[in-house]
Amino acid sequence: MPIIRVEIWEGRTIVQKRELVEVISRETARITGCGLDSIYVIIEDVKKENWGAGGELCSDKYPDDLN
Amino acid sequence: MPIIRVEIWEGRTIVQKRELVEVISRETARITGCGLDSIYVIIEDVKKENWGAGGELCSDKYPDDLN
Amino acid sequence: MPIIRVEIWEGRTIVQKRELVEVISRETARITGCGLDSIYVIIEDVKKENWGAGGELCSDKYPDDLN
Amino acid sequence: MPIIRVEIWEGRTIVQKRELVEVISRETARITGCGLDSIYVIIEDVKKENWGAGGELCSDKYPDDLN
Amino acid sequence: MPIIRVEIWEGRTIVQKRELVEVISRETARITGCGLDSIYVIIEDVKKENWGAGGELCSDKYPDDLN
Amino acid sequence: MPIIRVEIWEGRTIVQKRELVEVISRETARITGCGLDSIYVIIEDVKKENWGAGGELCSDKYPDDLN
Repeated sequence: MPIIRVEIWEGRTIVQKRELVEVISRETARITGCGLDSIYVIIEDVKKENWGAGGELCSDKYPDDLN
Repeated sequence: MPIIRVEIWEGRTIVQKRELVEVISRETARITGCGLDSIYVIIEDVKKENWGAGGELCSDKYPDDLN
Repeated sequence: MPIIRVEIWEGRTIVQKRELVEVISRETARITGCGLDSIYVIIEDVKKENWGAGGELCSDKYPDDLN
Repeated sequence: MPIIRVEIWEGRTIVQKRELVEVISRETARITGCGLDSIYVIIEDVKKENWGAGGELCSDKYPDDLN
Repeated sequence: MPIIRVEIWEGRTIVQKRELVEVISRETARITGCGLDSIYVIIEDVKKENWGAGGELCSDKYPDDLN
Repeated sequence: MPIIRVEIWEGRTIVQKRELVEVISRETARITGCGLDSIYVIIEDVKKENWGAGGELCSDKYPDDLN
Protein backbone atom coordinates (compact mmCIF):
# COMPACT_ATOMS: atom_id res chain seq x y z
CA MET A 1 0.00 0.00 0.00
CA PRO A 2 2.47 2.64 -1.13
CA ILE A 3 1.81 6.32 -0.58
CA ILE A 4 3.46 8.61 -3.09
CA ARG A 5 3.77 12.35 -2.72
CA VAL A 6 4.72 14.62 -5.62
CA GLU A 7 5.84 18.16 -4.91
CA ILE A 8 5.85 20.22 -8.06
CA TRP A 9 5.57 23.86 -9.10
CA GLU A 10 1.97 24.92 -9.32
CA GLY A 11 0.51 25.21 -12.80
CA ARG A 12 0.01 21.59 -13.82
CA THR A 13 -3.26 21.04 -15.64
CA ILE A 14 -5.86 18.53 -14.54
CA VAL A 15 -4.92 16.48 -17.62
CA GLN A 16 -1.30 16.29 -16.50
CA LYS A 17 -2.30 15.41 -12.94
CA ARG A 18 -4.60 12.68 -14.19
CA GLU A 19 -1.88 11.11 -16.30
CA LEU A 20 0.71 11.49 -13.55
CA VAL A 21 -1.51 9.64 -11.06
CA GLU A 22 -2.44 6.97 -13.58
CA VAL A 23 1.07 6.21 -14.76
CA ILE A 24 2.89 6.45 -11.43
CA SER A 25 0.30 4.23 -9.74
CA ARG A 26 0.31 1.62 -12.50
CA GLU A 27 4.10 1.46 -12.72
CA THR A 28 4.49 1.29 -8.94
CA ALA A 29 2.01 -1.58 -8.82
CA ARG A 30 3.85 -3.40 -11.58
CA ILE A 31 7.32 -2.96 -10.10
CA THR A 32 6.50 -3.65 -6.46
CA GLY A 33 3.74 -6.22 -6.87
CA CYS A 34 1.31 -4.14 -4.78
CA GLY A 35 -2.33 -4.03 -5.83
CA LEU A 36 -3.24 -0.92 -7.83
CA ASP A 37 -6.15 -0.24 -5.48
CA SER A 38 -3.79 0.09 -2.54
CA ILE A 39 -1.77 2.92 -4.06
CA TYR A 40 -2.30 6.56 -3.16
CA VAL A 41 -0.73 9.59 -4.80
CA ILE A 42 -0.87 13.11 -3.39
CA ILE A 43 0.21 16.07 -5.49
CA GLU A 44 1.37 19.22 -3.75
CA ASP A 45 1.29 22.35 -5.89
CA VAL A 46 4.13 24.54 -4.64
CA LYS A 47 4.41 28.23 -5.51
CA LYS A 48 7.74 29.23 -7.02
CA GLU A 49 8.11 31.83 -4.26
CA ASN A 50 8.00 28.95 -1.76
CA TRP A 51 10.66 26.85 -3.47
CA GLY A 52 14.35 27.58 -3.07
CA ALA A 53 17.10 26.11 -5.23
CA GLY A 54 20.76 26.83 -4.68
CA GLY A 55 19.97 29.51 -2.12
CA GLU A 56 17.54 31.49 -4.28
CA LEU A 57 13.78 31.57 -4.57
CA CYS A 58 12.67 29.97 -7.83
CA SER A 59 10.44 33.00 -8.42
CA ASP A 60 13.63 35.09 -8.57
CA LYS A 61 15.85 32.53 -10.30
CA TYR A 62 13.42 31.19 -12.88
CA PRO A 63 10.78 33.93 -13.27
CA ASP A 64 9.62 32.71 -16.66
CA ASP A 65 9.98 28.96 -16.35
CA LEU A 66 6.91 26.83 -15.95
CA ASN A 67 8.50 23.47 -15.15
CA MET B 1 7.04 16.02 21.59
CA PRO B 2 5.15 14.26 18.83
CA ILE B 3 4.33 16.01 15.59
CA ILE B 4 1.22 14.73 13.84
CA ARG B 5 0.27 15.56 10.28
CA VAL B 6 -3.21 14.86 8.92
CA GLU B 7 -3.78 14.92 5.17
CA ILE B 8 -7.46 15.02 4.37
CA TRP B 9 -9.74 16.15 1.57
CA GLU B 10 -10.47 19.84 1.86
CA GLY B 11 -13.89 20.77 3.19
CA ARG B 12 -13.54 20.06 6.93
CA THR B 13 -15.18 22.73 9.05
CA ILE B 14 -13.38 24.63 11.75
CA VAL B 15 -15.47 22.71 14.27
CA GLN B 16 -14.22 19.40 12.92
CA LYS B 17 -10.62 20.62 12.86
CA ARG B 18 -10.90 21.84 16.43
CA GLU B 19 -12.19 18.49 17.64
CA LEU B 20 -9.66 16.57 15.59
CA VAL B 21 -6.78 18.51 17.12
CA GLU B 22 -8.21 18.27 20.62
CA VAL B 23 -8.89 14.54 20.57
CA ILE B 24 -5.79 13.39 18.68
CA SER B 25 -3.53 15.46 20.93
CA ARG B 26 -5.17 14.28 24.14
CA GLU B 27 -5.15 10.62 23.14
CA THR B 28 -1.55 10.77 21.92
CA ALA B 29 -0.52 12.31 25.23
CA ARG B 30 -2.36 9.63 27.17
CA ILE B 31 -1.01 6.70 25.17
CA THR B 32 2.60 7.83 24.88
CA GLY B 33 3.03 9.66 28.17
CA CYS B 34 4.13 12.87 26.44
CA GLY B 35 2.96 16.18 27.84
CA LEU B 36 -0.05 17.62 26.03
CA ASP B 37 1.77 20.93 25.58
CA SER B 38 4.50 19.24 23.59
CA ILE B 39 2.15 17.90 20.91
CA TYR B 40 1.65 19.57 17.54
CA VAL B 41 -0.89 18.70 14.87
CA ILE B 42 -0.83 20.05 11.32
CA ILE B 43 -3.81 19.56 9.03
CA GLU B 44 -3.26 19.63 5.29
CA ASP B 45 -6.37 20.26 3.23
CA VAL B 46 -5.88 18.39 -0.04
CA LYS B 47 -8.02 19.05 -3.11
CA LYS B 48 -9.62 15.95 -4.59
CA GLU B 49 -7.97 16.77 -7.90
CA ASN B 50 -4.60 16.44 -6.13
CA TRP B 51 -5.35 13.05 -4.56
CA GLY B 52 -5.07 9.84 -6.52
CA ALA B 53 -6.45 6.49 -5.40
CA GLY B 54 -6.04 3.30 -7.39
CA GLY B 55 -4.65 5.21 -10.35
CA GLU B 56 -7.48 7.74 -10.64
CA LEU B 57 -7.94 11.29 -9.40
CA CYS B 58 -10.45 11.38 -6.56
CA SER B 59 -12.18 14.27 -8.34
CA ASP B 60 -12.93 11.82 -11.18
CA LYS B 61 -13.52 8.73 -9.06
CA TYR B 62 -15.57 10.25 -6.25
CA PRO B 63 -17.01 13.46 -7.69
CA ASP B 64 -19.79 13.70 -5.14
CA ASP B 65 -18.15 12.35 -2.01
CA LEU B 66 -17.16 14.71 0.76
CA ASN B 67 -15.12 12.37 2.95
CA MET C 1 -9.29 8.72 3.09
CA PRO C 2 -7.11 10.57 5.57
CA ILE C 3 -3.43 9.83 5.88
CA ILE C 4 -1.95 10.54 9.29
CA ARG C 5 1.74 10.67 10.05
CA VAL C 6 3.07 10.62 13.61
CA GLU C 7 6.67 11.62 14.25
CA ILE C 8 7.74 10.61 17.71
CA TRP C 9 10.94 9.79 19.59
CA GLU C 10 11.91 6.18 19.06
CA GLY C 11 11.22 3.82 21.92
CA ARG C 12 7.45 3.33 21.72
CA THR C 13 6.43 -0.27 22.31
CA ILE C 14 4.36 -2.27 19.88
CA VAL C 15 1.51 -2.07 22.41
CA GLN C 16 1.62 1.73 22.36
CA LYS C 17 1.79 1.83 18.58
CA ARG C 18 -1.16 -0.54 18.30
CA GLU C 19 -3.28 1.62 20.59
CA LEU C 20 -2.15 4.83 18.91
CA VAL C 21 -3.20 3.53 15.49
CA GLU C 22 -6.47 2.14 16.79
CA VAL C 23 -7.56 5.24 18.67
CA ILE C 24 -6.39 7.88 16.20
CA SER C 25 -8.03 6.04 13.29
CA ARG C 26 -11.30 5.48 15.11
CA GLU C 27 -11.54 9.06 16.34
CA THR C 28 -10.63 10.49 12.95
CA ALA C 29 -13.33 8.37 11.33
CA ARG C 30 -15.88 9.50 13.91
CA ILE C 31 -15.06 13.21 13.65
CA THR C 32 -14.69 13.47 9.89
CA GLY C 33 -17.23 10.91 8.76
CA CYS C 34 -14.65 8.97 6.73
CA GLY C 35 -14.81 5.19 6.68
CA LEU C 36 -12.40 3.56 9.12
CA ASP C 37 -11.06 1.35 6.33
CA SER C 38 -9.94 4.39 4.38
CA ILE C 39 -7.66 5.70 7.13
CA TYR C 40 -3.91 5.16 7.15
CA VAL C 41 -1.47 5.99 9.94
CA ILE C 42 2.30 5.98 9.57
CA ILE C 43 4.53 6.21 12.62
CA GLU C 44 8.04 7.56 12.21
CA ASP C 45 10.42 6.68 15.01
CA VAL C 46 12.87 9.57 15.28
CA LYS C 47 16.15 9.32 17.18
CA LYS C 48 16.66 12.03 19.79
CA GLU C 49 19.92 12.94 18.06
CA ASN C 50 17.88 13.73 14.94
CA TRP C 51 15.37 15.96 16.71
CA GLY C 52 16.16 19.56 17.58
CA ALA C 53 14.13 21.72 19.94
CA GLY C 54 14.95 25.33 20.69
CA GLY C 55 18.24 25.06 18.84
CA GLU C 56 19.56 22.00 20.69
CA LEU C 57 19.56 18.31 19.90
CA CYS C 58 17.11 16.48 22.13
CA SER C 59 19.86 13.94 22.88
CA ASP C 60 21.79 16.79 24.50
CA LYS C 61 18.85 18.64 26.01
CA TYR C 62 16.83 15.71 27.33
CA PRO C 63 19.35 12.87 27.67
CA ASP C 64 17.24 10.92 30.13
CA ASP C 65 13.72 11.61 28.92
CA LEU C 66 11.81 8.93 27.10
CA ASN C 67 8.81 10.92 25.86
CA MET D 1 12.14 20.20 -10.32
CA PRO D 2 9.68 17.77 -8.81
CA ILE D 3 10.43 15.95 -5.58
CA ILE D 4 8.73 12.60 -5.21
CA ARG D 5 8.52 10.63 -2.00
CA VAL D 6 7.49 6.97 -1.94
CA GLU D 7 6.49 5.40 1.37
CA ILE D 8 6.37 1.65 1.08
CA TRP D 9 6.68 -1.40 3.32
CA GLU D 10 10.29 -2.30 3.86
CA GLY D 11 11.59 -5.27 1.93
CA ARG D 12 11.98 -3.88 -1.60
CA THR D 13 15.14 -5.07 -3.28
CA ILE D 14 17.72 -2.74 -4.74
CA VAL D 15 16.60 -3.91 -8.18
CA GLN D 16 13.03 -2.82 -7.48
CA LYS D 17 14.17 0.51 -6.07
CA ARG D 18 16.36 1.13 -9.10
CA GLU D 19 13.50 0.47 -11.50
CA LEU D 20 11.07 2.49 -9.41
CA VAL D 21 13.34 5.53 -9.47
CA GLU D 22 14.11 5.13 -13.15
CA VAL D 23 10.52 4.75 -14.31
CA ILE D 24 8.86 7.29 -12.02
CA SER D 25 11.47 9.92 -12.88
CA ARG D 26 11.29 9.31 -16.61
CA GLU D 27 7.49 9.33 -16.69
CA THR D 28 7.26 12.43 -14.52
CA ALA D 29 9.67 14.23 -16.83
CA ARG D 30 7.66 13.18 -19.86
CA ILE D 31 4.27 14.17 -18.46
CA THR D 32 5.25 17.45 -16.84
CA GLY D 33 7.92 18.63 -19.25
CA CYS D 34 10.51 18.98 -16.46
CA GLY D 35 14.09 17.98 -17.17
CA LEU D 36 14.97 14.49 -15.96
CA ASP D 37 18.00 15.86 -14.13
CA SER D 38 15.80 18.07 -11.98
CA ILE D 39 13.77 15.18 -10.57
CA TYR D 40 14.43 13.66 -7.16
CA VAL D 41 12.85 10.54 -5.68
CA ILE D 42 13.14 9.52 -2.03
CA ILE D 43 12.03 6.08 -0.92
CA GLU D 44 11.03 5.57 2.69
CA ASP D 45 11.08 1.97 3.88
CA VAL D 46 8.36 1.70 6.52
CA LYS D 47 8.12 -1.24 8.91
CA LYS D 48 4.75 -2.96 8.95
CA GLU D 49 4.56 -2.35 12.71
CA ASN D 50 4.73 1.39 11.93
CA TRP D 51 1.94 1.37 9.35
CA GLY D 52 -1.71 1.34 10.34
CA ALA D 53 -4.59 0.57 8.00
CA GLY D 54 -8.21 0.65 9.07
CA GLY D 55 -7.23 1.04 12.70
CA GLU D 56 -4.86 -1.94 12.87
CA LEU D 57 -1.13 -2.31 12.57
CA CYS D 58 -0.21 -3.95 9.27
CA SER D 59 2.08 -6.31 11.21
CA ASP D 60 -1.08 -7.61 12.92
CA LYS D 61 -3.42 -7.37 9.96
CA TYR D 62 -1.15 -8.68 7.21
CA PRO D 63 1.52 -10.70 9.02
CA ASP D 64 2.49 -12.71 5.94
CA ASP D 65 2.08 -10.16 3.16
CA LEU D 66 5.10 -8.61 1.57
CA ASN D 67 3.47 -5.89 -0.51
CA MET E 1 21.75 17.14 -1.96
CA PRO E 2 19.73 18.04 1.11
CA ILE E 3 16.04 18.83 0.89
CA ILE E 4 14.75 21.14 3.58
CA ARG E 5 11.10 21.74 4.31
CA VAL E 6 9.93 24.63 6.49
CA GLU E 7 6.39 24.61 7.85
CA ILE E 8 5.46 28.00 9.21
CA TRP E 9 2.34 30.06 9.84
CA GLU E 10 1.27 31.85 6.72
CA GLY E 11 2.03 35.54 6.53
CA ARG E 12 5.78 35.59 5.85
CA THR E 13 6.75 38.22 3.30
CA ILE E 14 8.66 37.47 0.15
CA VAL E 15 11.62 39.29 1.71
CA GLN E 16 11.59 36.95 4.70
CA LYS E 17 11.24 33.89 2.48
CA ARG E 18 14.13 35.04 0.31
CA GLU E 19 16.41 35.50 3.31
CA LEU E 20 15.28 32.23 4.87
CA VAL E 21 16.13 30.28 1.73
CA GLU E 22 19.42 32.10 1.26
CA VAL E 23 20.68 31.67 4.81
CA ILE E 24 19.46 28.13 5.46
CA SER E 25 20.90 26.92 2.15
CA ARG E 26 24.25 28.62 2.67
CA GLU E 27 24.63 27.41 6.25
CA THR E 28 23.59 23.87 5.35
CA ALA E 29 26.17 23.82 2.56
CA ARG E 30 28.85 25.09 4.90
CA ILE E 31 28.11 22.66 7.74
CA THR E 32 27.56 19.54 5.67
CA GLY E 33 30.01 20.14 2.84
CA CYS E 34 27.27 19.76 0.19
CA GLY E 35 27.35 22.02 -2.83
CA LEU E 36 25.01 25.01 -2.55
CA ASP E 37 23.50 24.16 -5.93
CA SER E 38 22.35 20.79 -4.66
CA ILE E 39 20.24 22.23 -1.84
CA TYR E 40 16.48 22.67 -2.07
CA VAL E 41 14.20 24.43 0.39
CA ILE E 42 10.42 24.22 0.33
CA ILE E 43 8.33 26.55 2.46
CA GLU E 44 4.84 25.49 3.46
CA ASP E 45 2.56 28.31 4.56
CA VAL E 46 0.20 26.82 7.14
CA LYS E 47 -2.99 28.55 8.24
CA LYS E 48 -3.33 28.97 12.00
CA GLU E 49 -6.64 27.14 11.82
CA ASN E 50 -4.73 24.14 10.47
CA TRP E 51 -2.10 24.11 13.20
CA GLY E 52 -2.76 22.64 16.62
CA ALA E 53 -0.56 23.15 19.67
CA GLY E 54 -1.25 21.57 23.04
CA GLY E 55 -4.64 20.34 21.85
CA GLU E 56 -5.94 23.70 20.59
CA LEU E 57 -6.07 25.32 17.19
CA CYS E 58 -3.56 28.16 16.97
CA SER E 59 -6.33 30.35 15.54
CA ASP E 60 -8.11 29.93 18.88
CA LYS E 61 -5.08 29.94 21.14
CA TYR E 62 -3.07 32.73 19.51
CA PRO E 63 -5.63 34.79 17.59
CA ASP E 64 -3.45 37.88 17.44
CA ASP E 65 0.04 36.40 17.09
CA LEU E 66 1.79 36.55 13.77
CA ASN E 67 4.78 34.29 14.47
CA MET F 1 6.44 27.76 15.80
CA PRO F 2 8.18 26.61 12.66
CA ILE F 3 8.90 22.95 12.03
CA ILE F 4 11.88 22.26 9.81
CA ARG F 5 12.66 18.92 8.27
CA VAL F 6 16.07 18.18 6.72
CA GLU F 7 16.47 15.16 4.46
CA ILE F 8 20.11 14.38 3.88
CA TRP F 9 22.27 11.41 2.98
CA GLU F 10 23.11 9.39 6.04
CA GLY F 11 26.59 9.79 7.43
CA ARG F 12 26.42 13.18 9.15
CA THR F 13 28.23 13.22 12.49
CA ILE F 14 26.59 14.24 15.73
CA VAL F 15 28.75 17.37 15.64
CA GLN F 16 27.36 18.34 12.24
CA LYS F 17 23.79 17.64 13.33
CA ARG F 18 24.27 19.72 16.47
CA GLU F 19 25.55 22.68 14.49
CA LEU F 20 22.88 22.28 11.83
CA VAL F 21 20.11 22.38 14.43
CA GLU F 22 21.69 25.28 16.30
CA VAL F 23 22.29 27.48 13.27
CA ILE F 24 19.09 26.76 11.35
CA SER F 25 16.98 27.33 14.46
CA ARG F 26 18.74 30.55 15.42
CA GLU F 27 18.60 31.99 11.91
CA THR F 28 14.95 31.02 11.45
CA ALA F 29 14.10 32.73 14.74
CA ARG F 30 15.98 35.85 13.71
CA ILE F 31 14.45 36.09 10.22
CA THR F 32 10.86 35.24 11.11
CA GLY F 33 10.62 36.75 14.58
CA CYS F 34 9.52 33.44 16.11
CA GLY F 35 10.83 32.50 19.53
CA LEU F 36 13.79 30.12 19.44
CA ASP F 37 12.03 27.81 21.87
CA SER F 38 9.16 27.31 19.45
CA ILE F 39 11.35 25.96 16.66
CA TYR F 40 11.74 22.26 15.92
CA VAL F 41 14.13 20.61 13.49
CA ILE F 42 13.94 16.98 12.42
CA ILE F 43 16.79 15.39 10.50
CA GLU F 44 16.08 12.40 8.30
CA ASP F 45 19.10 10.30 7.41
CA VAL F 46 18.41 8.86 3.97
CA LYS F 47 20.42 5.97 2.52
CA LYS F 48 21.89 6.64 -0.90
CA GLU F 49 20.11 3.56 -2.19
CA ASN F 50 16.83 5.24 -1.24
CA TRP F 51 17.57 8.52 -3.00
CA GLY F 52 17.13 8.94 -6.73
CA ALA F 53 18.47 11.84 -8.77
CA GLY F 54 17.91 12.20 -12.48
CA GLY F 55 16.42 8.74 -12.69
CA GLU F 56 19.29 6.90 -11.00
CA LEU F 57 19.88 5.71 -7.46
CA CYS F 58 22.52 7.85 -5.76
CA SER F 59 24.22 4.63 -4.63
CA ASP F 60 24.79 3.86 -8.33
CA LYS F 61 25.43 7.40 -9.53
CA TYR F 62 27.62 8.66 -6.71
CA PRO F 63 29.07 5.52 -5.10
CA ASP F 64 31.99 7.34 -3.48
CA ASP F 65 30.44 10.68 -2.58
CA LEU F 66 29.63 11.45 1.02
CA ASN F 67 27.63 14.66 0.61
